[in-house]
Amino acid sequence: MKRGNRYGTHRVIDPLGSLPQPAQKISNDMMIYYNEILIDVDYLNIDSASFTQLKEEAGGDLEKIKSKIVKIVQERGKMQNPVTGSGGMLIGKVDEIGEALKYKIDLNIGDKVASLVSLSLTPLKIERILEINPDIDRVEIEGKAILFESGIYAKLPEDMEATLALAALDVAGAPAQVKNLVKEGDNVLILGATGKSGLMCSYMAKKMVGNRGKVIGQARNETRAEFLRKTEFCHKVIIADVLNPINVLEETLKANSGDEVDIAINCLSIPNSELSSILPVRDKGIVYFFSMATSFTKAALGAEGIGKDVTMIIGNGYTKNHAQITLDLLRESDTLRKIFEEKYTN
Amino acid sequence: MKRGNRYGTHRVIDPLGSLPQPAQKISNDMMIYYNEILIDVDYLNIDSASFTQLKEEAGGDLEKIKSKIVKIVQERGKMQNPVTGSGGMLIGKVDEIGEALKYKIDLNIGDKVASLVSLSLTPLKIERILEINPDIDRVEIEGKAILFESGIYAKLPEDMEATLALAALDVAGAPAQVKNLVKEGDNVLILGATGKSGLMCSYMAKKMVGNRGKVIGQARNETRAEFLRKTEFCHKVIIADVLNPINVLEETLKANSGDEVDIAINCLSIPNSELSSILPVRDKGIVYFFSMATSFTKAALGAEGIGKDVTMIIGNGYTKNHAQITLDLLRESDTLRKIFEEKYTN
Repeated sequence: MKRGNRYGTHRVIDPLGSLPQPAQKISNDMMIYYNEILIDVDYLNIDSASFTQLKEEAGGDLEKIKSKIVKIVQERGKMQNPVTGSGGMLIGKVDEIGEALKYKIDLNIGDKVASLVSLSLTPLKIERILEINPDIDRVEIEGKAILFESGIYAKLPEDMEATLALAALDVAGAPAQVKNLVKEGDNVLILGATGKSGLMCSYMAKKMVGNRGKVIGQARNETRAEFLRKTEFCHKVIIADVLNPINVLEETLKANSGDEVDIAINCLSIPNSELSSILPVRDKGIVYFFSMATSFTKAALGAEGIGKDVTMIIGNGYTKNHAQITLDLLRESDTLRKIFEEKYTN
Repeated sequence: MKRGNRYGTHRVIDPLGSLPQPAQKISNDMMIYYNEILIDVDYLNIDSASFTQLKEEAGGDLEKIKSKIVKIVQERGKMQNPVTGSGGMLIGKVDEIGEALKYKIDLNIGDKVASLVSLSLTPLKIERILEINPDIDRVEIEGKAILFESGIYAKLPEDMEATLALAALDVAGAPAQVKNLVKEGDNVLILGATGKSGLMCSYMAKKMVGNRGKVIGQARNETRAEFLRKTEFCHKVIIADVLNPINVLEETLKANSGDEVDIAINCLSIPNSELSSILPVRDKGIVYFFSMATSFTKAALGAEGIGKDVTMIIGNGYTKNHAQITLDLLRESDTLRKIFEEKYTN
C-alpha cells in the first residue's frame, strides 16, 4: 500500500495538479491507499439541485436518470453533475481501513457511516443501481467508494433509521451555520422555508432569535404555506414568487412592519433567486446562500446593481460539529423528526 | 414623461418581472423616464473577466471583439457578457436629468461622471465603436446610456484624469471592502496581487494590518514578483501557480512561518482558483472572492470537500463611500498612482 495525499490529489487524472472536487476525472480504482477508507455503499443521496437537473433532462424517466448517473460515474470516477457541479452524499458500511488510519480514527469494519464530504470529490464505482426514489433524491446501489484522509464522515446514530439520519446530514451544514450566524433579536427571512434545509434553518433560526426577533418563512403557494404554519417553525409565513424580487420584497416588508430584514437565508434549489435574497435585506445586513443553484456573478453584480451594501456568504457545507448539531435537532423536535420521516425517508 | 421603477424593472423585456441585471434583454430606448438620467457615453471599461473571455473567443482580433460587443448590446440592450455574466462600467457626460431627480441630486448637465453600477444592468445604445484598447479593457464609443434612480455614480474628480479615475473606480469595491474586513494583526494572502484590484487591495491591507500583521502577495512569475516587491505594498511576495492549490498552500506556509493565514483575498480574473483561496486559510478564517470568475459551487463544495470551516464572502462591488475611499488611495500613494497612470490609462 502507498500513502496518498491527505486531500486525495493522488487520484486526480485530469487536470493533473488539481484537487479532486474541481477535477474532470479522478481514479475510482478500489484498491485503497495507506490513508484511505473503503466504503461498501448502500445509498447515494443526490444533491437537490443536481437531482432536479437530472430529472428535467430525463423528462422524469427513471431509466434515463439511471443511465445518466452510471454514465457520469464512468466518465468522471465520481458522481458530479456536469451541469450543476454538485454531488450529494452516501451511506454505507466500512469495508477496509488503510494502515495509516487504523489506530487513529474511531471506526471499525462494518460500522455504518455517512460521508459528509460531497460525492463531487468522492471516488465511486457503481456495480448496479437497484432503485431510484425520485421523491427523496435517493439512489440505492451496489458499489464502493473511497474516503480520503481529510474526508469527513459521521457514524450513523443508534437511535434513528439510517435513511432519516442521511436525509438530515445531507443538509447538515445549513442549520449549523445558522446557529453561528443568527443572533438574538434578528429579523430573519428564510427563502424556501418549506424544503429540507429550509425547515431545519427555520427551526434553528427561531431558537436563535429569541423573543425579540422574528423568523419569516417564504412558501411558494398556499398549500405549502399552510404546511409551514402548522410546524410553528416561523413567526410569520409569506407566499411569494422567488423569481420576482419585487414581490418578495413587498411581502417581506408587510410581514416585518415595513422594515427590511437583518439576514436572508436562501435555501432554494432553483436558479435566479439571488436578487430575491438581496433586495429584502437592510444595508450592512447578511445574505446567506445555501442553494447550490446560486450564481456568483448574479449575486455580486445584483447587489452592486441595486446599491446594496450587504455581506453575501457562500454556504459552506462544513462547519465544526455540524453533524451533531443537526442530528440533535431531530432529537429535540418531534415535529421536525416526523416531517423528515414522512417526507424524506420511505 | 412617466416615472419608472427605482430599480429599473420598467425596462425589462425578458423575462418580465425580473430585475435588469439578471434579465436577458432590457429596453435601450433612449427616451428617459421621469426618474432616470441620460448619459452621453465616452468610454466603456469592460470587466476584466468579460474582456479576457471576449479576447479569447476572438483569438485577439480587435475587429471581431468590436462586432461581438455591438452584437451583445443589440441583443440584450446592455453590455453583459453572455458567458461570464459580467459587465464593467462607463464614463460620460450628463445629457439629461429626469424631472423627478433634478432637484434631488448633486448633478448638472455636462458633468463628467462614472457609473458605479455594472454595465450588465445599464441600458446602453452604441452608435459607433471608435477604438479598443485591449491592454486596459477599454472601449471608446459614441453612444448613450441610462442610469436608474437606484443607480450609483461618481462625479469625476478635478485633480486627476478621467481615465485614471475610471480605472480606479472600476475596482472601487475591492479596497473599500478590504478596509471593512481586515483587522490589525491579521495575516492576509492576496491572490493576484499584481493586478489592478490586487494592487489596491494589497496597499489597503498593509495599512489595515499594522505592524503586527502581514500581507503576502501572490505573483505568477519572477517578473511580476519583482514588480510587486518594488511597490512595497506587501510584506512578502510569493510566486505560485493559482491553478495548483497545493503549491499555493506550500508557498504561503513558507512565507507565514508555517501558519495558515487569517484572510485570503482572491483578486484573480481566471477560473478555477477557488481551492487555492480556501486551502491556505485557517479554520474560522475568511476567504473573500472578488474575482468574477469565481464559481459558487466550486467554492462551496471545495471547502466542504477538504473540511475547511471558513467563511466565504462574495465580493460586493458596492459598499458605502467606496468611490471616495478608492480615489483617496491614488491621492495618498504616489507609487499606486504612478502604476495606475502607466498601466491602466494611456
